[in-house]
Amino acid sequence: MRVTIGQINTINGDFESNTASIIRAIEQGKQENSDLVVLPETCVQGYTSLDWFLDRDVQRCALEPLKKIVEATKGITAIVGTVRPSNETTGRRLFNSAAVIRNQELLGFADKTLLPEYDVFDDPRYFQPSTERHLFANKLGVAVCEDFWNDKTFWRERLYTNDPADELIELGAKVLISINASPFNKGKMGQRCSMVSHRAMMAKIPIVFVNLVGGNDGVIFDGASIIADANGKIILQAPPFEEFIGTVDLDSNEADQRCLPGDDVETIHGALVLGIRDYARKNGFKRAVLGLSGGIDSAVVAALACEAIGAENVLSVMMPSPYSSRSSIDDSVELGRRLGMPVIEHPISNAFEVLLKQMQLPAPSVESRSTAAENLQSRLRGNILMTISNSEGRLLLSTGNKSELALGYCTLYGDTNGGLAVIGDVLKTEVYALAKYLNRNNEIIPDAIVNKRPSAELAPGQFDDQSLPPYDQLDRVLKLYFEQKATPSEIVATGFEAGFVQDILNRVESPANEFKRRQLPPTLIISRNAIGIGRRRPVTHHYRREWLNC
Amino acid sequence: MRVTIGQINTINGDFESNTASIIRAIEQGKQENSDLVVLPETCVQGYTSLDWFLDRDVQRCALEPLKKIVEATKGITAIVGTVRPSNETTGRRLFNSAAVIRNQELLGFADKTLLPEYDVFDDPRYFQPSTERHLFANKLGVAVCEDFWNDKTFWRERLYTNDPADELIELGAKVLISINASPFNKGKMGQRCSMVSHRAMMAKIPIVFVNLVGGNDGVIFDGASIIADANGKIILQAPPFEEFIGTVDLDSNEADQRCLPGDDVETIHGALVLGIRDYARKNGFKRAVLGLSGGIDSAVVAALACEAIGAENVLSVMMPSPYSSRSSIDDSVELGRRLGMPVIEHPISNAFEVLLKQMQLPAPSVESRSTAAENLQSRLRGNILMTISNSEGRLLLSTGNKSELALGYCTLYGDTNGGLAVIGDVLKTEVYALAKYLNRNNEIIPDAIVNKRPSAELAPGQFDDQSLPPYDQLDRVLKLYFEQKATPSEIVATGFEAGFVQDILNRVESPANEFKRRQLPPTLIISRNAIGIGRRRPVTHHYRREWLNC
Repeated sequence: MRVTIGQINTINGDFESNTASIIRAIEQGKQENSDLVVLPETCVQGYTSLDWFLDRDVQRCALEPLKKIVEATKGITAIVGTVRPSNETTGRRLFNSAAVIRNQELLGFADKTLLPEYDVFDDPRYFQPSTERHLFANKLGVAVCEDFWNDKTFWRERLYTNDPADELIELGAKVLISINASPFNKGKMGQRCSMVSHRAMMAKIPIVFVNLVGGNDGVIFDGASIIADANGKIILQAPPFEEFIGTVDLDSNEADQRCLPGDDVETIHGALVLGIRDYARKNGFKRAVLGLSGGIDSAVVAALACEAIGAENVLSVMMPSPYSSRSSIDDSVELGRRLGMPVIEHPISNAFEVLLKQMQLPAPSVESRSTAAENLQSRLRGNILMTISNSEGRLLLSTGNKSELALGYCTLYGDTNGGLAVIGDVLKTEVYALAKYLNRNNEIIPDAIVNKRPSAELAPGQFDDQSLPPYDQLDRVLKLYFEQKATPSEIVATGFEAGFVQDILNRVESPANEFKRRQLPPTLIISRNAIGIGRRRPVTHHYRREWLNC
Repeated sequence: MRVTIGQINTINGDFESNTASIIRAIEQGKQENSDLVVLPETCVQGYTSLDWFLDRDVQRCALEPLKKIVEATKGITAIVGTVRPSNETTGRRLFNSAAVIRNQELLGFADKTLLPEYDVFDDPRYFQPSTERHLFANKLGVAVCEDFWNDKTFWRERLYTNDPADELIELGAKVLISINASPFNKGKMGQRCSMVSHRAMMAKIPIVFVNLVGGNDGVIFDGASIIADANGKIILQAPPFEEFIGTVDLDSNEADQRCLPGDDVETIHGALVLGIRDYARKNGFKRAVLGLSGGIDSAVVAALACEAIGAENVLSVMMPSPYSSRSSIDDSVELGRRLGMPVIEHPISNAFEVLLKQMQLPAPSVESRSTAAENLQSRLRGNILMTISNSEGRLLLSTGNKSELALGYCTLYGDTNGGLAVIGDVLKTEVYALAKYLNRNNEIIPDAIVNKRPSAELAPGQFDDQSLPPYDQLDRVLKLYFEQKATPSEIVATGFEAGFVQDILNRVESPANEFKRRQLPPTLIISRNAIGIGRRRPVTHHYRREWLNC
């Protein structure tokens, strides 16, 4: 059996372009003499359609685009992810389905049974779970996303008691098709690949695992689709972060391909570049703007943006205050030169002076610090950047990293301003790793920027390490807390002092910091439990005092 | 049987004060010779705890606070909403339960079966559904929230096929206890009351329906608990928007009490005042600040804030620009005088001039409008307000109404700034109704403000009606679209032109406006499908072109 996979990049609600991408994959399948073309979950509508799936006109019209797709299947079978209306009088109005189409005939649907409701997922909000299981012609088993992800021989902990994919195997499936909209996070490519290989080996049947690709707000689908043969050997590993249509014979004796681990800095880099590019493209922005402070965060964001949409389209703005160092300007100019990116200067000093006087605030000094005066500078910068964004129709990229945002070391309505938080899920130590990766061939980000002692430069003699724990220790705690969901006592058990951990976590979870995070732009997500739509915390709470007890 | 209800106001994670409130209700129940005290859903932890319920230490310690509560039940039975850990190896780690405690003995739990996943609710994210049903001593049936809300003889459309409350009645329940955390929206009090009365009448048993009270971020639990006797007669209607502990004999021949409809302006007023008060109190703010433009929105927010936290604690700031009318200042001063609220002036003209020149923007004029220059003013005001907020530790209240926010007629990082969007779910026409209500005894909001032609005053000769449809028509469309979830064609069928409706809805759903709404502070919610956490739309989408077709 020859199978073509269509790892396509969809746009929510753009039925015309999504259908065209689907048909393009089907046509290529025909050309490559495939028996079957497989496309990702809800690729007709776009997976992150969210509450559009609650609109009754969207529900009613859900199967309209399928007509053209059915027509395009002359002489071939296609499996296409789409939502479809439910005919029941109770329950959710849609199923999340795989349409199985053969030679211009819609054979039927395989509906999703397990509806994820964690992290960024809200499937039960939209979909009715399926209760039936059946095979299609030629003993094809078809599982929609989560239905494949609950293998009791693979996962230590499971959210569901049943395993729809296993039920399909029990029914005698000769091939198992898994269509997915599985977002990127660090290490997930490798995990998926092991999971597919393991299941194929155990069931002794080939498995075709197709994933969506593309950025949608903060959620980045990485593609990296996989096909395993009946021995669990990986006979196709599609590239991540790009569209890919490819064909393989399930019985072919292809060489075993390496699983991509997907947890390295090269992969993070690929995810972020795709995330920026798709957010700009899908929202109609050709050009971007960002503030360049002379520090490593904005330098890395600038370099990523230049890769994503072209250096000539990225405008960087230096906005020195009386507390900016000369080197911040020089280094920023040099960065612009190396990237081929325009850099302009808009000092905030005059406006700052006017407002400082008007608000009767003392100028920040080494002796007397003032959060209000510090934030005022950051907000004037935010104001200037938004003025350029409004005047020139540029997408404003915000440059705060996850370590800062986690601890609230940022100014709301200031440096957090933007349409997209590019490194809002990237820890400071990972930002350094990205800088190193960006400099792997040439020194694009000047060493002076990389080696500088981090500072917000909002007051004389101000440095990050006066307000924050050392980044290497902080990031280890944050990684355990966010990505591993470790409890405070588990973090302490890895070798930290209890007071140190509790201080950090109390700060992370303080209402004053959640209040800021609630108002951030969408953050490009590269980890589990990232700041953004997958992490839902109330602003108002008194939870912090209870930790480490009981 | 004598029953005491404890309609209490909890704080997420404040186990000490929540437990104290619960025990206070139990003590009062003893004093009033009750047989049973009933407390709301998850009142031990606080219903809007969200992802705190995913933390393993919170899960593990979930039953700790119950120990003190069990001790307090000497000689009485209590039903208390709490989460409890699951012992299963698969599935979610918690049940959403009612603990049934009698005379210092924990008899057991009634766990929630139907887990709402719509609007602001995400129950399946946290809870494992119950699969069993049983009665407690004396044939007591206990249903947690949604388990009571799926009566097929009451609702036209249902989300679930089963009806746990009906199953309890089938098992022979002599009394049905329904514990809730049911948020306010317009008309919901009346709906709940009819639902309870209907079920009691049909089942011929008394029903005790207890609701949480209090604001939690944007979600406002209104209380308004109800007890119906075996004939469906309402023998207790608790007041909305305040704590209430009260006792009634289920067999008493109390006079039938009127169901509160809860859709009038008095009720909206009560919800908003409680929402402001609790957000401030629970987050430790004694004082607030807001910008006073001379228009009706900020005047109404100021009046509400004065009621909520005391006029002396509300600082209003006038920030005139060259385009502000003299009357805006005079009217604002007069409003402050009538409310007894301090009003100060911080003109933005100097800073605006500096930045306008620096950014080489032409000053806004009647002939040449500039969004950038207009937004610049709003953002300078936002900057001044945040400076005061930072300097004085005041909660910034934002003053945009729902009609504006729906159409993106607001400046992000400007007038949208704040810790709480007070009228972000209140349509402009409802703002007028609130002003009239606030003026019911004395003219608190000067007529000059109420009767003024609405204007953002960001350019000479600028008025809202140049950029927006007439508010009475706009609000009718928005009400149908948001609150009734009407489709575009259904809205047209009520008598609007298709082009008019499509223009409004395309504007509502444009990515440029969703981008702004995504970064708003929590909005006090008074309707279904409000802007805020209950409305989840992607920024990135191309859906708009497809409307009214198919």
